[in-house]
Amino acid sequence: MTAPTRQRLIEAASVLFRRQGLAATGIKQILAVADAPYSSLYHHFPGGKDELAAAAILASGDYYETLVGGVWDSAADLEGSMIAVFDGAAELLVLTDYADACPIATVALEVASTNETLRIATAQVFTRWDDAVTRRLREAGVPGSAALPLSQSIMALLEGAFMLARAAKTTAPMHAARDSVLVLVRAASSVPGERVPGERAPSARRTS
Amino acid sequence: MTAPTRQRLIEAASVLFRRQGLAATGIKQILAVADAPYSSLYHHFPGGKDELAAAAILASGDYYETLVGGVWDSAADLEGSMIAVFDGAAELLVLTDYADACPIATVALEVASTNETLRIATAQVFTRWDDAVTRRLREAGVPGSAALPLSQSIMALLEGAFMLARAAKTTAPMHAARDSVLVLVRAASSVPGERVPGERAPSARRTS
Repeated sequence: MTAPTRQRLIEAASVLFRRQGLAATGIKQILAVADAPYSSLYHHFPGGKDELAAAAILASGDYYETLVGGVWDSAADLEGSMIAVFDGAAELLVLTDYADACPIATVALEVASTNETLRIATAQVFTRWDDAVTRRLREAGVPGSAALPLSQSIMALLEGAFMLARAAKTTAPMHAARDSVLVLVRAASSVPGERVPGERAPSARRTS
Repeated sequence: MTAPTRQRLIEAASVLFRRQGLAATGIKQILAVADAPYSSLYHHFPGGKDELAAAAILASGDYYETLVGGVWDSAADLEGSMIAVFDGAAELLVLTDYADACPIATVALEVASTNETLRIATAQVFTRWDDAVTRRLREAGVPGSAALPLSQSIMALLEGAFMLARAAKTTAPMHAARDSVLVLVRAASSVPGERVPGERAPSARRTS
């Protein structure tokens, strides 16, 4: 059984955008990959390529939120989650010969200053991811005010490492990002003993 | 006095690639911005758009290395340099309505799996930047083995924060990245007083 045409169009567009970007992807190529007739595009997406692109961006965002969320939740603690997510990203790069990474990164940079409708779609996805990561960080004990900036830095490290790793075809930047995220997570979690220099030590625990 | 045609073509291509990417930028638009006749493209770049694109990527890399290097070196110490670079990046975003960021990021993602010649050009630029950052980190006292991964994480944070900031049109991710870089720099610099928990304190300095 094949998926309905609308869904096939969204999936084809998502894969092509992820691997080669928006501008390099023509309507004809999307229809060919989706095995869909030309008429189906405007039937399902009267706004044409832009409307399909917005749907593909949002669908990719949901799909990856579930995927990465599952990897995150598979570990017993926050440090384990970070290792699972970043090592998983490195593995994905190797398995796909550095083709598959963030599903919306290329498009996000292409449209940021050229297509306001699609810029907003990418911003919505990043905001949803931020919300999901911030919530998980708080649940793991990161103080409220530290959770949002930490989430932004985790996402920036992941996106930036994807870019550097794909360009150089090496996982080294992803492993460096993983180790940096562990440093940041430990610093934000206010583990006793990781005091700011000059801060007074907490009173010694009384022995019972 | 206007720049020679070859240089005008490279500069026009660099600006257009930075703002809208490679695939969205046509030869006609480059020639129009450069105010150059059609024949000049193949005269100066017999390989056409790809050869011009490779030259633009490398030229942008050199230009930004000098620019960011100057900002880095303007501060008195490593933490000051990090603040200057990341706050400068945030300022650049605001001044250009979030259009100008990393000159090769969009192209790097577009070509990573689609154009091997241009992928290699972007990888060369990232390697040169890594070399320059690693050298500065070592000069600032970061231990040898820590300098390269720290450089990769600084670059990943900058690239990722540019992406998130451009998508959302806010500098918040860049400021979060700055604060994270400061945490990473302090952790890598092994400043006395920032000891690993459980490590013995260095002997007190003798008063003379």
